Formats: sequence, C-alpha cells, structure tokens
Amino acid sequence: MKNKSSTHKRSLGVKYTNSRDLFETGKLSYEWAVRMMKIITKITEKYQRAKPLANFKLGFCLHITKETSVLIMAAKALGAEISICSANPLSVQIDVMEFLRYNEINVFAKKDPSKVEFFESIIHLAKSKPHIITDDGAELHSIVHKRKIKDILGGTEQTTSGIFRILSLESKTGLNYPIIDVNNAKTKHFFDNRYGTGQSTIYGLMKTLGILIAGKIFVVCGYGWVGKGISSCLRGLGARVTITEVDPIKALEAHIDGFDVQRLKDTLPKGDCFITCTGQRDIITKYDFDLLKNGAFLANAGHFDVEIDVAYLYTQDKHPVQPRPYVESFIIKGKKINLIAKGRVINLVGGEGNPSEVMDLSFSNQLLSILYITKNYKNLEKKLHQVPNQIDEKVAQVALSSFGIKIDNLTREQVDYHNKAYVNY
Amino acid sequence: MKNKSSTHKRSLGVKYTNSRDLFETGKLSYEWAVRMMKIITKITEKYQRAKPLANFKLGFCLHITKETSVLIMAAKALGAEISICSANPLSVQIDVMEFLRYNEINVFAKKDPSKVEFFESIIHLAKSKPHIITDDGAELHSIVHKRKIKDILGGTEQTTSGIFRILSLESKTGLNYPIIDVNNAKTKHFFDNRYGTGQSTIYGLMKTLGILIAGKIFVVCGYGWVGKGISSCLRGLGARVTITEVDPIKALEAHIDGFDVQRLKDTLPKGDCFITCTGQRDIITKYDFDLLKNGAFLANAGHFDVEIDVAYLYTQDKHPVQPRPYVESFIIKGKKINLIAKGRVINLVGGEGNPSEVMDLSFSNQLLSILYITKNYKNLEKKLHQVPNQIDEKVAQVALSSFGIKIDNLTREQVDYHNKAYVNY
Amino acid sequence: MKNKSSTHKRSLGVKYTNSRDLFETGKLSYEWAVRMMKIITKITEKYQRAKPLANFKLGFCLHITKETSVLIMAAKALGAEISICSANPLSVQIDVMEFLRYNEINVFAKKDPSKVEFFESIIHLAKSKPHIITDDGAELHSIVHKRKIKDILGGTEQTTSGIFRILSLESKTGLNYPIIDVNNAKTKHFFDNRYGTGQSTIYGLMKTLGILIAGKIFVVCGYGWVGKGISSCLRGLGARVTITEVDPIKALEAHIDGFDVQRLKDTLPKGDCFITCTGQRDIITKYDFDLLKNGAFLANAGHFDVEIDVAYLYTQDKHPVQPRPYVESFIIKGKKINLIAKGRVINLVGGEGNPSEVMDLSFSNQLLSILYITKNYKNLEKKLHQVPNQIDEKVAQVALSSFGIKIDNLTREQVDYHNKAYVNY
Amino acid sequence: MKNKSSTHKRSLGVKYTNSRDLFETGKLSYEWAVRMMKIITKITEKYQRAKPLANFKLGFCLHITKETSVLIMAAKALGAEISICSANPLSVQIDVMEFLRYNEINVFAKKDPSKVEFFESIIHLAKSKPHIITDDGAELHSIVHKRKIKDILGGTEQTTSGIFRILSLESKTGLNYPIIDVNNAKTKHFFDNRYGTGQSTIYGLMKTLGILIAGKIFVVCGYGWVGKGISSCLRGLGARVTITEVDPIKALEAHIDGFDVQRLKDTLPKGDCFITCTGQRDIITKYDFDLLKNGAFLANAGHFDVEIDVAYLYTQDKHPVQPRPYVESFIIKGKKINLIAKGRVINLVGGEGNPSEVMDLSFSNQLLSILYITKNYKNLEKKLHQVPNQIDEKVAQVALSSFGIKIDNLTREQVDYHNKAYVNY
Repeated sequence: MKNKSSTHKRSLGVKYTNSRDLFETGKLSYEWAVRMMKIITKITEKYQRAKPLANFKLGFCLHITKETSVLIMAAKALGAEISICSANPLSVQIDVMEFLRYNEINVFAKKDPSKVEFFESIIHLAKSKPHIITDDGAELHSIVHKRKIKDILGGTEQTTSGIFRILSLESKTGLNYPIIDVNNAKTKHFFDNRYGTGQSTIYGLMKTLGILIAGKIFVVCGYGWVGKGISSCLRGLGARVTITEVDPIKALEAHIDGFDVQRLKDTLPKGDCFITCTGQRDIITKYDFDLLKNGAFLANAGHFDVEIDVAYLYTQDKHPVQPRPYVESFIIKGKKINLIAKGRVINLVGGEGNPSEVMDLSFSNQLLSILYITKNYKNLEKKLHQVPNQIDEKVAQVALSSFGIKIDNLTREQVDYHNKAYVNY
Repeated sequence: MKNKSSTHKRSLGVKYTNSRDLFETGKLSYEWAVRMMKIITKITEKYQRAKPLANFKLGFCLHITKETSVLIMAAKALGAEISICSANPLSVQIDVMEFLRYNEINVFAKKDPSKVEFFESIIHLAKSKPHIITDDGAELHSIVHKRKIKDILGGTEQTTSGIFRILSLESKTGLNYPIIDVNNAKTKHFFDNRYGTGQSTIYGLMKTLGILIAGKIFVVCGYGWVGKGISSCLRGLGARVTITEVDPIKALEAHIDGFDVQRLKDTLPKGDCFITCTGQRDIITKYDFDLLKNGAFLANAGHFDVEIDVAYLYTQDKHPVQPRPYVESFIIKGKKINLIAKGRVINLVGGEGNPSEVMDLSFSNQLLSILYITKNYKNLEKKLHQVPNQIDEKVAQVALSSFGIKIDNLTREQVDYHNKAYVNY
Repeated sequence: MKNKSSTHKRSLGVKYTNSRDLFETGKLSYEWAVRMMKIITKITEKYQRAKPLANFKLGFCLHITKETSVLIMAAKALGAEISICSANPLSVQIDVMEFLRYNEINVFAKKDPSKVEFFESIIHLAKSKPHIITDDGAELHSIVHKRKIKDILGGTEQTTSGIFRILSLESKTGLNYPIIDVNNAKTKHFFDNRYGTGQSTIYGLMKTLGILIAGKIFVVCGYGWVGKGISSCLRGLGARVTITEVDPIKALEAHIDGFDVQRLKDTLPKGDCFITCTGQRDIITKYDFDLLKNGAFLANAGHFDVEIDVAYLYTQDKHPVQPRPYVESFIIKGKKINLIAKGRVINLVGGEGNPSEVMDLSFSNQLLSILYITKNYKNLEKKLHQVPNQIDEKVAQVALSSFGIKIDNLTREQVDYHNKAYVNY
Repeated sequence: MKNKSSTHKRSLGVKYTNSRDLFETGKLSYEWAVRMMKIITKITEKYQRAKPLANFKLGFCLHITKETSVLIMAAKALGAEISICSANPLSVQIDVMEFLRYNEINVFAKKDPSKVEFFESIIHLAKSKPHIITDDGAELHSIVHKRKIKDILGGTEQTTSGIFRILSLESKTGLNYPIIDVNNAKTKHFFDNRYGTGQSTIYGLMKTLGILIAGKIFVVCGYGWVGKGISSCLRGLGARVTITEVDPIKALEAHIDGFDVQRLKDTLPKGDCFITCTGQRDIITKYDFDLLKNGAFLANAGHFDVEIDVAYLYTQDKHPVQPRPYVESFIIKGKKINLIAKGRVINLVGGEGNPSEVMDLSFSNQLLSILYITKNYKNLEKKLHQVPNQIDEKVAQVALSSFGIKIDNLTREQVDYHNKAYVNY
C-alpha cells in the first residue's frame, strides 16, 4: 500500500512554484474560519489536552474548504492521524489543501481531477485503512463496503442523499460497521437548511442577477425547511412570496404564515422569479415555460439539478445568450427566460456555500460523533444510528456559551413536575 | 334512559323566562361560528346525505361554546343521537346551551353549577351509555372507566392534560376502548398553539392592560410552539422580545430567529412585561419579584396557573389595588408589580379563547376521528392511538379548498422518484 | 365668576349616591395613567417647584379620560387655575370627572348631556374667561371667536379637523390670539397615527370580530401614516395585505414595501376584511357591495364615517342581524356583508382609543406649548403657529430619558462639518 | 472645437484589439439593464416618435455603467446629440463605453485615466458646448461656471453632495442657468436611499465577510432613510439591530420601531458588526476601537469615508492582514478589528452599486427633467429648482403601470371634499 500511496501522491502531485503563497492564503482562510467557528473551537480547547483521538486513524471524504480545514485541524489537535480526500471533483480549494499538507495531513486530492483521478483518490483513502470514516454523500462508505475493507470501527455521514445510499446498502447487504446519521441532528439540519440555505440562496440571487428584491413576486416551490428559510428571508427584504406545495399540511402552514399559496401553473404568468427547493424532480417542466412572464428568472435551491427541465430549454434555444455570469437567457416563443446556474443549486454556485457559522454546527456534531464512536464502537450495532441526543444538546450548549449566552436550568422540583406530568392533577 | 334523562333535566332544569331570547342569541352565535368554521361545514356537507352516524349515540364533554355548537350540529346532521355535558363548570354559554336544547340535543348542564352538580352532569352523561365519547380533559373518560360503563366503542381526547390522564389510566388499568389522541394531529396542535394562542395572548394583553406594544421589552419564558407564536406576534407589533429557555436547542433556535436570549434573572430589571408559557412550574418565583422593574406586568399563557408564584404575592401585599379589570397591583418593597388574571391563562380570561378558525381545525379532526371509529372500532386495539395521518391531511385539504386554495399533486414519476429516493444516483 | 360657576355646577350637577366610589375609581384610573405617561410626569417634576403657570387660568375642551386627567393634574401642579369641559358629549368618563372635581378642577360636564347641555357647558367655560385655551376639534376656539370673548392670550389645538376649522376662521375673520398647531408636532402625529392607530385598529378588529388575523386577506384603503401602521401590524400578525391608493407615489411605496397594490374594485371579490383609512369620502360605495365576497367584513379607521356608504346598506337591508356587539350583518343579493361599528372609527368603538403612551406624547406637546405661550404671547402674531421645533425635540428627549435610553450628541467638529456641509470637498 | 475634440479623442483613444468583443459585452449589459429599467423604457416609447430632444446637445457627466447607457440611449432615441464623460475616474465600465461609441455617442473617457486626464475629459466636454448638463457630483457644473462657458440652457444634478456644491456656487456667484435638483424627487431619494442602499449594503456584507446574518448583533449608526433601510433588511434576515442616533426624534422612532437604541459607546463591547450611515464624520473614533469586541467588523455605508477613523487604525497596525478580499484585520491591543473596504461606502465596493430598478427611478426623473428644461428654460429663474411634482408623480405612475399595477383615481366629489376639507363639518 505504501508504494501505491506514494505513487498516488506523485500522480496527483502538482509542483506549485508558489506553494508557499498557497499555504499562506490557505492559512489566512483557516484562521478566518476558526474565528467564525466558535463551537468547534471551544470543543477542541476542552479536549485537546486529553488527546482522546490518539491512536485513531480518521478518514474524511469532504469538500475541501476552509471550514473543513477547521474540522481537520481540530481532529488533529485531539490526537488523530488523518487522511482526507475530496467529496466532489469541483470543490477542492487548493490553498486549503496546501495548508493541510503543510500541517501533515494526508491529502488525497488535486485540483480539477479527471473522473478517474477523482475516484482513485477515494480508493486510495479507503485503502489507507482508516478506523473511522466521515463522509459527505456516502461515496467512501460505498467504496469500503464494495471493496470489503476491514477493521473500520465506525463512521458518520452528513447529507440526506448519503443517508439514502446507506439505507439502501443496509437493506441490501447490511453494514460492516455502525454509522451515525449526523444529518439528523437538530442542530445540523434545522439551522443548516433554514438559516444557512435561506441566506445563501438570497445571496446567490443578488450576486447572479443584481436585481432589487423588494416589490418583486417570488414563487418558492416547496415549503420544507429550505423553502421556509428562503421565503422568510425574501419577505424580510420586501418581496412578495407565493408558495407551491403538494403536501396539504405544509400548504396550510404557508397560508397561515401569511404567504400566498397557489398551484404552480397559476403562478407562472405572474412570478418574477421562481426558486425550486422541493427535493423532487420535474417541478418546472416543458409544459410550464410557455406560460412564464417574459423575462422571468428561474433558479434551483434543491440538492439535485432535476427540478427545472433544463435539457428541454436547450432543445428550444441551442445558443442562449449569457448576459451575466451564471445567467443564460433562452428565447422561447419570443419570450426571454433567464436560467441561473444551469439549474444547479444556486447557493453553491460561484458563492461560498453555507456561512462558516452554519458549518460549525454540522462539524461540531461530526467531531462529537467521532469521539462517541471511539468510546462506544464495541457496543454499537452495525447499522445506521441517530445522533445521540446528548451530542445534539452539547453542541447547542457550547454554541450558546460561545456566543456569551446563558440560559436557565430546571430545578429538581421542575424535573419532578415534568416527570409526574399532570397525571395527578 | 328517557326517564332518567327527563329526571336529569328537571334536576338541573332552570326556567328561563327568556329562554326564547336566549335561543335567538345562541342561534346568532351558532350562525356566526358556522361562517367562520368552513372546514367542518364542508365536511358536513359532504357526508350529510349518507348519514354515517345514524344509529350511533355520541357523548360529548366539552366547553359549551358557539364553536362546540357547530361540532354538535354537524354530528347531528350526520345522523347521530347526541348528549353533551360541560367540561368545565365555568365555561357554559347559556345561550348556546339553549340553542342546542331547541335542536333536540340532550344537554346535561346548567349555568354556574355547584361542584356536585357539575360532576353529576358528567355522571348522568356517562350513564346515558354513549357509543363514542369525545372529551376535553379526560374527565368523562375517567368516570366511565371508574364506573365500568360498558358498550363504549371508542373515544377521542383533545387536550395535552387529558392525554396524560389517559396514559396514566392505560398504564394502571388498561383502557376499555380505543381512544384517538386528537391533540396530536398536526393540524390541531400546530395551528392552535402557535397561531391561536399567539394572537389571543396578545389580545388579552391589549384588553387587560391597554398598553402600547411597540417599543416595550417583553420577556417570553419558554420557546415552544406557544412561545414562538407569542414572540412572533409581539415582534410583528414592534415589541422587543427576550426569550428565556432551559432547552439549549430551543434557546439556540430563538437566538438565530433574532431574539435576545437570556437567563430569567438577567431579564428581571429590564423587562416591561413577562409572559410565561413553559408548561412548567416556578418560572417567576419569590426570589424574582424583588428584582423586577417598578411597574412590571406579569402574565401567564401556560395551561396551569403554576408558572408565577401568585400565592407569594398575596403574602407580601394582602390587599392589592385593582386599577383595571383583571389587573392587581401589588406593592412589594415599594415597587408596583402588576399581575394579570391572577396568573391564570391570559388568552381565556375575559376573552373568547381561540378564534373560531382555530377551533375549526381541532373539531374537524374530532369529527373525522369519530367517523373513523365508527368504521374501524372492531379492529382498533384498546389503547391510545395517534390521529391517522389521512385524517390530518384530509383536514388540511378541506381547509385549503374552503379558503379557495388549490395546490399541486405529485405525478406518478414524482412518487416513484420519492420512493426510489436518490438510491441510484 | 364664582357665582356663575356654582350656578353652573348646580344646573349640571348630578347627585351620585356613590360619588366617593366614583372618585376612588377615577383615582385608580388616574394613577394607572400616570405610570404609563412617563414623559408628562417627568416634565411636571421638572417644573413643579417654579410654578410657571401660577396666575394663569387655563380652559381645556378635551375628551374627559384618564389620560386627560394626567394633563390636567400636571397643569395644576405647575400652578394653573383650571376649567375643563368635554369635547364630545359621549366621551365623558364620570369617574375621571369626579376625580377632577375632588381635586378642585372646575368641571363643566355631565354624563350623557343633551345637545343643548353639551353646548352650554362649552359656553360656560368660554365665559369663565380662560387665559389660554386648549382644544380638541376647535369647538371652544370657534365659540370664543363667535362670542368675542376678550383677554385670551393664546391657545392650542390638537386635531386635524380642528386645524381646518381654525384655518377657515383665520381666512374669514382673522384670529384674536395666537394658536399653536400641536397636531403638527412630529412627536404627535407621527407616533399617534402610525403606532397608536395601527395597534388600536387591530385591537378593535379582534374585539368586535374575534377572527384569526393570520392567513386572511385584508384590504387597507389608503397608505398614509394610519394605513402604514395598520398594514404593518396586520403583516406582523400573519395577514396578507392589499393596499389601494390614489396617490401614485404612495402606491409605489406600498409596492416596494412588499404589499400587493390594486384598484379597489379588483380587490372586492378577494378580500376577507376591508379597512378604510383615507380621510376621503366614498371609498366603498353602493357600486362595490355587490362584488364583495359573501361574509366580507367592513371597517373604517378614518376620522369621519364617510368612507363606507353605510346609508345605502340600510336601504338594502333595513333590519340587519346583530350577531355580535358592534357588528351588523346585512343581506345584499343573498350575500352577507358584515359592517363594524356602523362605519365609525373602529379604534374608538368600545375600546379605549389610543394607548396612554401615545397620548403622553400629544399631551406633553400640549403642556410645553402652553408654557411656551405664557412666555411668548406678547411676541406671537395672532395666527396659527407650528409647534416650535425645540418643543418637539424636548418631548422626544424626555421620552427617551423616561425609557432609560441615552443617545449620542454631536461634537463641535460634527456641528461644524454639518454646517460647512461638504462644500469644500 | 472639432480639432480639439478629435485631438482629445486621439489623446484618450485606446486601440482595443478586441473592441468588437467589448462592444458585444457592453451590448449584452445594456440589453439586460433595459429589461430591468421598465420605467425609462416606457417613457422612451412614449416620446420617441416626436423626437422632442432633436436640436439639443446634451452633456452628461455620470458613472459610465450599464444603467447610464440606458439613459443615454433613451435620450438619443428622443433625438438628442450626446456627449458623455465620467463622473469618477474609477467608475468607467469599458464595455459600456465601447457600446456607446458604436452608437455614435461622443464618449470623453478612458479606462484608468490619470487625474489630469480625468479632469481634461470633463473640460473637453464642457468646451463641446452642451445645451443641457446632467451631472453627478456637480464637477461639470463647477467647471462650466469657472470657465464661464456660455449658452447653457439648464442642467440637472442628482447627488446630495452635488447639490451642496451648487448651493455654495449659487450663494457665492449666482448660477448661470437653472438647475433642477433631481436628488430631491421623492421617487429618487426615497427609494434609492431606503431600498437600494439597504439591499446593496447587506449584499456587500455577505460578499466581503461571508457571515451568517441571523443571530448577530448589528449596530447601525444613524437612522435616516439609509439607516432605516439597512436596519429593516437586517431584521428581515434574523439579525438583532441596535441603533445609535443624535437626533432625539429619530431615536424615538427607532425605539418605537422595535429597535434597541443606545449610545455608541455602550454598544461597543456587544456589537458583532458596526455600520455607519450618518452622513457625519467621526462616528467610530480612536477612543472607540479599544472597547470593541475581539473580532468585530466595521463597515461604512455613508457617502464619504470620514465616518470611521481609518487613519488611526493604520497608525496602530501598519501591516494589517488581509484574510479576504476587501477585508483588513488590524491587531489593536491584542484584539482583531476587521475593517471592510477601508471604510469606503460598502455597497459600491466590489459590487454593482444600486440595483438597476432603483437607477431606473432616478434616471427617469433625469430624463423628464431634461424634457422639462427644453420646454421651460425661458421662464425658469437661474437658480436651483425642486423637481416639479408632476414629474415625480409621472415617474411613479409609469413605474406602477410598467409593473402592471393599476390604482384608483379621485372622483370629482372626492376632489371637492379634499378642497373644502372638513371646513363645514
């Protein structure tokens, strides 16, 4: 394996004449992110003396960003030996990569890899035999199962789509080690989806279109947590928001929250801008484009680019004009339809994704889940586990204290009252 | 039964010289409520030809209000034979009672009953052998279990505290028939707690205090659904809101929702008005009153009057002044502390409780749950059941259509997509 | 004068067997209002030693409410000799009247006066020869001009409609003394119209209708300060708000504030509740009622009851049902139209009008304007004057300090910078 | 003049090997802006047949942006002969410049001019003897006055600072022609300051800092229109906002709007991010930096960079780190202070300034004011004039109609009612 790895490193190796500069930039990015990520920093401070991760090899398959570097450096401070590969061929920030390499992290990644190179990196990491695997999208989990890599004690996964793949794996072949569903932590999905994606979607709209939000009619398709976050931000900036939904309970909630609720087709001639965030396919389809207002904007904030039928647009106008970066204007039956970022998730396009503060919540759950595995792997069943509630609460507690916020505690009498709960009233 | 009933009527009977007037007033109230309660009205229209409740005797133990009369008349229109008693000695609206009597409902209630009379009414109803019992607080359920009344096919319960009693009953002696926990319907607790209680608490404050909300500092103790509703309404009217919590995850949520989060004791010298809605006891205690600002207002929006230590206030100032209805001003160490409604739930005090539209959601769940029992009682285990999800969705669907709102439906491809769920991505 | 006054008292005099009780109630109301009216209380504290109003006879023609009693007692504390009559036959609170009498204020008023008695009271007050007149609606100003009462040094007026009458008087015959237009103070009309009327209109709606605000469609006719206040409160409680306007600039402002802007006729079939606040006549007319949704609610928040064509409604349904206090349901072409408070200003109906805190701002302007007249009447032209800006700012300053708020001051360099103003840049 | 001009063109002339590409990009930008600027487009459509600007030479001194190109092309469509120079050496977008040149506009500008070249361009334009001058900052107005250029019929100016210069000019030497103060149009300053700057400041913060807005404490210094816009947007995104003010009336307004109002020095240890928008100097000074929280962010949204004492920061830390573009981190007494954009106006930095829709309002006022001058210059006094109210209303009307919004009109009876105004009530 050693040979392979070194071969691998060579094959991925890039001589940066300016690798020192890259390191410096990466270091600045890391330091900035550290200041924004107060929760994981507090957790690190608490545990770094005890080195609870000493003697553990950790394998991370994540987007290589400044926030990830904070998680990696935290795990290192707790004593771990660490390898990392990229969860996505496009998401490697090479300055961060360089910063991690200088800090003796095994980085199996390069800028702009070919598809083959990308998968090779993940396989390399899998073969390096990590004890614990932290994944984003379950690619690494899939590969270690397919290749029957042994001696893995446990793992974590932080995306909805990754969890689906793990559930499928579990139902088909069973899992070889326990995996903790970090995505399910309240302090993760709750804040990430609502606040993080809400704000970053608005930012993506402002950046790509430069339009005034106030006074415009936005149609938000889907009133899950992401839709709620986006709608709330838009209203806060003076927009008028219409919601489309298929779930009557969510539709009713949107209605009583003061939004206009309609069928998509009824909104088509009125909306200035459409944002899909349903997690479903075929939201705005070939039957809908004709009914749009001339000059309408279309954006997707869902994870996959299946919500708007982009392929159809290209059949109707093969050479759309690009009036601004990330915007294509299609002419369909004499009307202009402006598509943002080819229907890919808008808050990542050309932006920085979620704010560091939101990643802080997710990665704090990751770090505490890794610690939890190191202590409990012997007793954990080989299946998908919820994040233990005490981890979720711990993250919230540290978050509050890092913001300087103190809260109340239950008295003994109150705990009793809660437990007896009215029964004797 | 006829004899008993007539005896009963005599024993509780009151000769109103003006019973015709009362009936007319009750009829107007009923008609007003019908117009506000579009969901249950639509459900009634749908089923009234088929008379699915014919041959069923229903027993209701509810607050006798105009909204209740809509539920009762709906059940009657569906063919049921109906008896009703009051769930609370203080909540009988006699005009509504008279209206129901004229419509041949067996009403076991009177205005201002003694405690003995109050319980007698419930016992009378129990003895009338209803097939299905609809309760608010589980008093009737308790009595039919204690007295071992037979032949009950099923029941429903709509309050949190009633559910606790039923759970206690279930764990001690088992249930004699299946009971549906209507309180747990999303379309009930969700809208009721957040929107209903939010608005009616604000109304109670305006009514009892007459103060300007804008610019004042409100401290809301508890950030559950009720606390969220109240805080959102207050902010919407220009108040500054501080939240106190014991649950770090809720505290974090309040923080990111833009509220100031503090320990109660830190808020005491600053708050203009305190509203408790924790469902806990001992929120504002004898140790806290001294630290309040001179002239502070105290109100409780929780179900029980245990959140503010009212008893202590009376030990410190035995004869508080009553500057306004429902307000008492205590002088404690030279400072004025204004207590609203003796610390009892503010939105019911001197008000009309929840708006009819909110009761419409709850009672539609009740009616559909009753129908569900008539069809499924043979197969239902004798235990507490969740409201079936299809009832919850049905209520939401009818609600939307009664507001003239249309929503989208999943296509077959979308259903497939959801089921396969990314697995093959 | 003494004789006359005592005669007057006899003629208006009512023997309350319980005048002591009335006094006690009035005293409680006064004391409550004092606590809410911190600005005028602070001003009183500042000046009461110097007694700047000693040797001045003040005549007030105001609504006799608890807030007015605070103004009156403040003027008394500053040394004035005071007479008061009621500005409206319906607005006398007799407990407050009794409280004032016990405090040696000459009260020319009685409960439920006939029209003749009402005007007689004002004439009595006019004849008592006050030095300074404080009016609400300019009735007293009109009478002293008509009757050519001499020796008046100056006056104030606080309503828009009163100002119109004074302007008319000024243009026709000239004024006999300087009058200060307190209505025009920024700290008066600004807060009063926007926050005071906004909140109290919402309160009036909740009280008379008992409806859930969230999710309903409200049509607010007019986007002046009152319309802005109402719209903002409604949105804050979860309503959807549509604005109608005739002024394109205000319409544009409403649009960019995120409201739906339409012609009235386009809103008729959609609105759940209409609120007129234009200051104009004929907003909802006989041509409009037919187009309303069955069950629509109509309310007026404008000063006069000319905005909704109420008279026409009575021609179509002579005996409307009264399902709730202050609500009449007219049947017009088979549809129910619910009119609130006969189209009179909703926030006063059955309510307490503006919160004390808002009256505090207005009455502080009144008191400081009276003081201003005592010092400057010799130099003031006999015409209508704006409230001097230093009074406006003084009120704001005392308001802030009474709320415990400190603000910054300009440095000398900043004053210079402002004066030179960029000229040399 | 011809020679000079051609010389000038030569001296400024740049051979772009890719001028065709620049033109194409400029054209796309122009076309995008046209679609966003519906008001000026409607006005152009209305007048372009009549060519009311034929025979007029117009001189524009503006930022050369895509929005400006829309104004220029509109004036051209109305028949004018046009010259343009840049109002700021840094604000020339060369693709737009190239697009204008291809459309036969005389462009006196080049990319990155020296200071001398910059002023030369303006002088060249002045010497080209325009009939009407449209200015941004009054540089061109100053120069034509200083150089006593003759035959100018009138002019316009759209910035606050430009107006100050013109007032100074007027008071010292008098004006040689009438100038219309476009800045004063309600449809300009109102929307521009509140909505435009509000949104673009938030965008600038998100872009430069990448921070989560929700839950953070922002201190907004100044509660004028800009401060109101920023505060409202921040609150809409979940931030907690504290206001500092020197004007007690504005401070009171902020308080009743629900914001926390404090002295700057009391906010220093608590604020996460400070935004100055006072139009004053010395808001955050050397005495304040020490008191800031470690890691605080400082930004300025005021026109000039005099609100934060940036110079002092450089004396304390000569080599601040640049962790992100446009951000400098100063270490002062062990604490990090993050300054954005060197204290220059944040919404222009690295952004696109105000959204096109906001410029549309301003430039529509410009275009209609130019038309107004062509018709009325003979009768206009040689002084600064307000924008005529009918222009302001016209812009609002066209804006509404371009958004598809219809509003009501006053009836004859209503006009009468307004005129008689209550006098006879």
